[in-house]
Amino acid sequence: MNIRLITYMLGQVIRATGAVMVIPVCCSIWYREDTWYALVFPMLFMLLFGTVLTHYRPADGEGMQARDGLVAVGLAWIVLSLLGMLPFILSGDLIHPADAFFETVSGFTTTGATVMGEAVGVNPADLDRGIAMWRSLTHWIGGMGVLVFVMAVMPKQDFKSTRLMHAMRAEVPGPVATKVVPTLRHSARIMYGIYIAMTVLMVVFLLAGGMSLYDAVLHSLSTAGTGGFSNMNASIGAYDSSYIHWVITIFMLLFSINFNLYYLIITGHVLQALRCEEMRWFLIVVGGVTAIITLNISSLYDHVGIALRDAAFQVAAFISTTGFNTANYDHWPALSQGLLVLLMFIGGCAGSTAGGIKVSRLVILIRSAGREVRNILFPREVRCVRAEERAVDEDTVRGANAYIVLYLLFFVAGVLLLLGDGLDLVTSFTAVTSCINNVGPGFGTLIGATAGSSFGVFSPWVKILLSFIMLLGRLELFPILMLFYPASRRGKMKKLIKNS
Amino acid sequence: MNIRLITYMLGQVIRATGAVMVIPVCCSIWYREDTWYALVFPMLFMLLFGTVLTHYRPADGEGMQARDGLVAVGLAWIVLSLLGMLPFILSGDLIHPADAFFETVSGFTTTGATVMGEAVGVNPADLDRGIAMWRSLTHWIGGMGVLVFVMAVMPKQDFKSTRLMHAMRAEVPGPVATKVVPTLRHSARIMYGIYIAMTVLMVVFLLAGGMSLYDAVLHSLSTAGTGGFSNMNASIGAYDSSYIHWVITIFMLLFSINFNLYYLIITGHVLQALRCEEMRWFLIVVGGVTAIITLNISSLYDHVGIALRDAAFQVAAFISTTGFNTANYDHWPALSQGLLVLLMFIGGCAGSTAGGIKVSRLVILIRSAGREVRNILFPREVRCVRAEERAVDEDTVRGANAYIVLYLLFFVAGVLLLLGDGLDLVTSFTAVTSCINNVGPGFGTLIGATAGSSFGVFSPWVKILLSFIMLLGRLELFPILMLFYPASRRGKMKKLIKNS
Repeated sequence: MNIRLITYMLGQVIRATGAVMVIPVCCSIWYREDTWYALVFPMLFMLLFGTVLTHYRPADGEGMQARDGLVAVGLAWIVLSLLGMLPFILSGDLIHPADAFFETVSGFTTTGATVMGEAVGVNPADLDRGIAMWRSLTHWIGGMGVLVFVMAVMPKQDFKSTRLMHAMRAEVPGPVATKVVPTLRHSARIMYGIYIAMTVLMVVFLLAGGMSLYDAVLHSLSTAGTGGFSNMNASIGAYDSSYIHWVITIFMLLFSINFNLYYLIITGHVLQALRCEEMRWFLIVVGGVTAIITLNISSLYDHVGIALRDAAFQVAAFISTTGFNTANYDHWPALSQGLLVLLMFIGGCAGSTAGGIKVSRLVILIRSAGREVRNILFPREVRCVRAEERAVDEDTVRGANAYIVLYLLFFVAGVLLLLGDGLDLVTSFTAVTSCINNVGPGFGTLIGATAGSSFGVFSPWVKILLSFIMLLGRLELFPILMLFYPASRRGKMKKLIKNS
Repeated sequence: MNIRLITYMLGQVIRATGAVMVIPVCCSIWYREDTWYALVFPMLFMLLFGTVLTHYRPADGEGMQARDGLVAVGLAWIVLSLLGMLPFILSGDLIHPADAFFETVSGFTTTGATVMGEAVGVNPADLDRGIAMWRSLTHWIGGMGVLVFVMAVMPKQDFKSTRLMHAMRAEVPGPVATKVVPTLRHSARIMYGIYIAMTVLMVVFLLAGGMSLYDAVLHSLSTAGTGGFSNMNASIGAYDSSYIHWVITIFMLLFSINFNLYYLIITGHVLQALRCEEMRWFLIVVGGVTAIITLNISSLYDHVGIALRDAAFQVAAFISTTGFNTANYDHWPALSQGLLVLLMFIGGCAGSTAGGIKVSRLVILIRSAGREVRNILFPREVRCVRAEERAVDEDTVRGANAYIVLYLLFFVAGVLLLLGDGLDLVTSFTAVTSCINNVGPGFGTLIGATAGSSFGVFSPWVKILLSFIMLLGRLELFPILMLFYPASRRGKMKKLIKNS
């Protein structure tokens, strides 16, 4: 293990996050809030601590194994969550460390599940504006990834691209990590440029709908990361404007599509972008499920237009894994509820800020299963799995299959542990579904769509457990797994590497 | 497609099933029941129809493709179910064809889900003894497989072993089909010999517990096939004897273990049998879950011994996918219920009469996922997946991964279709879980453990849908899939084969 390299990357990540904290700090000072210190002190601490960790630069020649990248990413996300929870504790909004940790992990992983709510006496609307802004900013930071951000801002000579590819692979969701341009640093910059531009565009659209600047920025940050935190107790349902609902619906979908496509569009390759197979399947699912749910719920509504609006919003909210809500879907028919749960598992496209299993991974899985059917029938032919008009390499196919097995194992283990804590079947099943796919809300009276429902009613250890499930989901298992890999076996493997 | 060969095999299967029908016919005549004609006429028809179909023997040289084997098995099971439902219709017990078809498929696939119950006014206890015996006999026939039976009784010169291996592979559950002795026919005879001996042994044990001969035979047939039909409305709960509960618990487990092991034990290779990895994992799961559920439900019982008895019975009933019940597990805590649902998915060992995903397939899946984790970390090593102290060949590994993906697809589609029919989440989820894994009962007020709950309350098309889900589960997807494979593509593939 290259400790010095990991420490250095950790320092960079902490310092960069500290720097971004200037936004909520300014917000807090502008509104002259008493809780400014809850943001300023953590910011200063992160800047200082980060700088100390980056003091010893690793030598240019030092290599980075896949393992180092995974450990660096896993560690970075846990340390960031531990530091990012300080504002909630210092401001007194969330006193219990388990609550503050859950809320921060939920923020960085873009889950958007909250321990606040009427059931526990602390409402999102009660938060000071600076703190609420920090809460939504964690979504924005986590959406694109902290290490990707560091790569974008780091001086050029610091790292060789090849070394960092391992870290990027671990943080960017999807079965394959792709770069839009040959150098990693340049790619990261383009991605963040598009991310910022789209966030600003969304702010403009929301302002045009009459939303206040503060609310527009906060909800744009939450939407961009496909997170779901709102400063309204009733989420987006608090806004009585169809325009705002539709704008957020569309942006939730836009942030769930592979950002590489936007780069293709910007550089004039519009047709190539439109031919993306993953995006097509994503939009087919969105369209199909929206149509079914609209029909299914239309009898509950006076106007079919409102039914369509609410159906489209919830479909976008669940498949993008944002988790905002405008309608009490807990009262919808069972078919609509089942479809929404299914959308949580599907998730968005690879290379977006959305969670879930990812559309491209599902396409690869289904195609590889189809190939095996043909192999059983006609064993003599040689076949490859195709996606995006290209043959998928066998490592990716096997990786996707392994991913789904591990994913299901962690899913089942999570549900059983929650059941063991005495929670009912629906709550346990949907809480783990929501957390592993980074969605936010679940179903049922405890964590469903009813105003005031909250993860705050869970016991502290369930909150910690769900926090780790959120991290497993956001980082797609491997970085977090690596951290808990038994040290003895790690040693054995180190030896194996040395020999190889 | 080799139509003549498939027709010939179909005829053999129908004739053999007609011959076995002599048991319920004798039973009906012995008790001088009015419904004897409902059994005698179908028996005569099957003997005649089967003989006609076998009239043209295929020539010795005619080959059998994998595809032919799959189609023959898929077709045989559907035709048998259509013929096997006649006694229920002729006797007037189940007038609607969807009811009769569901009950018969549930029988042959060893599911044990019933359309009878208080909710629909027809109770299992109301059936005439001959009809009830036929109902349980379908479990026994389907448990070991109809084609396997045909292989055991067919004259030696009729088929070459290599040709029939495809059909056997399609009917015997598990990721790999193994023969205990080199010739297929001899293997099938040994398997059926063990099957009959164990069924008789169980009858003896039940008689020793004071059960009547008729009840003992009927419940032994149901248990041997890990089916679950009973002539008692309250299932095994009707017997107030701990001895009978324990005997059935143990035999449910015995019939879920690979029958090859019994052959090893008979031939003196006891140690080799005990070293079977799949059996070890199976028993570890049974023991572990029984312990957890006993602790979880102990507060509901006065004596921990009774809690252990009921826990062990339900664990055995669900993991063996028999689906008998003695306790109202719908009132058990959520953790126990969740574990029982999980057991339905796991199922028994390959090469047994049990359903579910199968322990050995899960072992292969988890090991192959573990290998990919190591491949990501240390890409330079070459690894193989090991099971039963041997390297698993890569086709089997890929087959298991494809199986789980297709299995999940059909599972999700089934649940959505049931939700679309207006059923609630718990009923839809557990009905499909129960049917695809060939268990029997589900959870909730409609199909749960409460006396009188029944699949009879579903609409006819849901019953047909669930019948096909049971067939998909029993035959492990491929034979049924083949039947619905588009004819045009089949033609294209035939051409491909010709060219290869």
